[in-house]
Amino acid sequence: MTFSLFDHDAPHGEASRLVAFSSNRLDRRSEHRKESELGEALNDPATRYFAITQGRLAMRINGSAPEGLLAADEVAAMQPHHEDAVLIGWDATDAPRIAIPVRMAPDDLPEPFKAIDTRSVYRQALMDEETLGAYALGASLVSWALANRFCGACGGPMTPQSGGYRRRCGACDHVVFPRTDPVAIMLTIDETGDRCLLGRSPHFPPGMYSCLAGFIEPGETMEDAVRRETLEESGITVGRVRYHASQPWPMPHSLMIGVYAEAKSLDIVPDTAELEDCRWFDRSETEAMLANALGEDKASAPPPGAIAHRLMRDWLDWGLQNSRES
Amino acid sequence: MTFSLFDHDAPHGEASRLVAFSSNRLDRRSEHRKESELGEALNDPATRYFAITQGRLAMRINGSAPEGLLAADEVAAMQPHHEDAVLIGWDATDAPRIAIPVRMAPDDLPEPFKAIDTRSVYRQALMDEETLGAYALGASLVSWALANRFCGACGGPMTPQSGGYRRRCGACDHVVFPRTDPVAIMLTIDETGDRCLLGRSPHFPPGMYSCLAGFIEPGETMEDAVRRETLEESGITVGRVRYHASQPWPMPHSLMIGVYAEAKSLDIVPDTAELEDCRWFDRSETEAMLANALGEDKASAPPPGAIAHRLMRDWLDWGLQNSRES
Repeated sequence: MTFSLFDHDAPHGEASRLVAFSSNRLDRRSEHRKESELGEALNDPATRYFAITQGRLAMRINGSAPEGLLAADEVAAMQPHHEDAVLIGWDATDAPRIAIPVRMAPDDLPEPFKAIDTRSVYRQALMDEETLGAYALGASLVSWALANRFCGACGGPMTPQSGGYRRRCGACDHVVFPRTDPVAIMLTIDETGDRCLLGRSPHFPPGMYSCLAGFIEPGETMEDAVRRETLEESGITVGRVRYHASQPWPMPHSLMIGVYAEAKSLDIVPDTAELEDCRWFDRSETEAMLANALGEDKASAPPPGAIAHRLMRDWLDWGLQNSRES
Repeated sequence: MTFSLFDHDAPHGEASRLVAFSSNRLDRRSEHRKESELGEALNDPATRYFAITQGRLAMRINGSAPEGLLAADEVAAMQPHHEDAVLIGWDATDAPRIAIPVRMAPDDLPEPFKAIDTRSVYRQALMDEETLGAYALGASLVSWALANRFCGACGGPMTPQSGGYRRRCGACDHVVFPRTDPVAIMLTIDETGDRCLLGRSPHFPPGMYSCLAGFIEPGETMEDAVRRETLEESGITVGRVRYHASQPWPMPHSLMIGVYAEAKSLDIVPDTAELEDCRWFDRSETEAMLANALGEDKASAPPPGAIAHRLMRDWLDWGLQNSRES
């Protein structure tokens, strides 16, 4: 028997490179951090900052060129929490990048600054992909830092180390590392290969349908999480699972793991506590939903950049067939 | 162009089903928990317990049949922390399973109980695969519960909810969910397709080599984590990445994501802070290492059940070729 190791190339190359938040190019130097580096970066005039207030990014809005990376003097006016700053990495010119929570409330930011939530930064394409990837890293680390100011084991105060990539309790020495929550997101295909299963959560924009998804829990494989979540949310039994792409998702710090799943049943029993609708869509319906992405009055798909959009797009473009051998 | 959706079947079926800790069959009912269920389970004579002391499992050792699931009266003598118990699920007969931390130290357990670390429970095959899978879930949740007794946001005490699947701060309402840390573990194959890259950490058993691995960090794709970790640890540049299998790893609560990675360079520059050796091994050497798994005086591979073993075994058995197209 001979199988090919790397024959699964997408026509477009690695699918994970085509989703939003995936293009961070900062050098993390995570293995070789010196304790002095954060302090040095805070004093380096080349350092640029993502300033985060109540989960939103403070952006400089000057005419048509919004800017998410701010200079030290701009951030200083926003009452930064220096003690929870994170040195997220260095750019190609060795200039440091810091993500920092600020105390000033979103509505109190002076002109020309405005606090924008992460979803809007992404949906409205307010940054280039590389900066958006760096922001995903910074937003995740700041959210994690603020949720770990005290030690979960003993309640004592935590002190950041390694530029904020790790936090240690002064009282009991408990150490925590940044958290990343794996989420399975699946485009389930029926046995004909020509229909996909999509659901609608009540908090989606009007008309939008997307892939089912759920957190991978402790003690289960990715594949078992796909089968458990699909069964819980739709009543559909899943057989085989095929990995397609992954995506960092900074709300607050998930890793989306996007797969195709093979339906072994057809009758949908939606979990009405989670979904207000769940249906099979054929290829032409799915094509129309992708074309109307963000449309308000028709069924629509998540926008380009969402891993659900990528799964739907590639299912259509690659002519993916649910082959019957097994 | 036509691609097949589910043509990547292993000769043996889903690889994630063949690794240790992956066979939990308890019904979690995670979507529909009532607050009264943990209390009911603690009073149900059918309930069986995993009792955990300082990260080790209290097992009943009677002759040749070690038992990891204990009855309520056995656990009562070990000073259980009822407040940090987790209702991990129900078995096929609807009997509840609880994982519970106990205060009695490992050395103080009375006959016939003995505290066994998780690695030994697995390596010495002290449980059937299904019980081992349930224990993986319980051990992960107890470890997480003990690391979240206090609120990281404000330092207040946390109260378990949903049978321990969630914890809420009484002071500030901050909620935390169980943590699962995604780890990329990769068998990197050279351009001939006939050699794999393995490393040796100083804390491995004598002679053992394994796949390189590392935590997936916030703000990066799985594929980028594979490339970053491989470059950091070995100096080898990776191109394409192919998903193979996943494995829950309860030390303390990881999700191993096992992949094949395509080397684009040959010269190894090991990270000597992490590895005491890193080398290319050909197919016959790898075959010998798998056969001598756990051997003390020869180079050996991790034991069956480890995802690294699975990656090596399947690379050999499937005749996986590094195809040169594209």
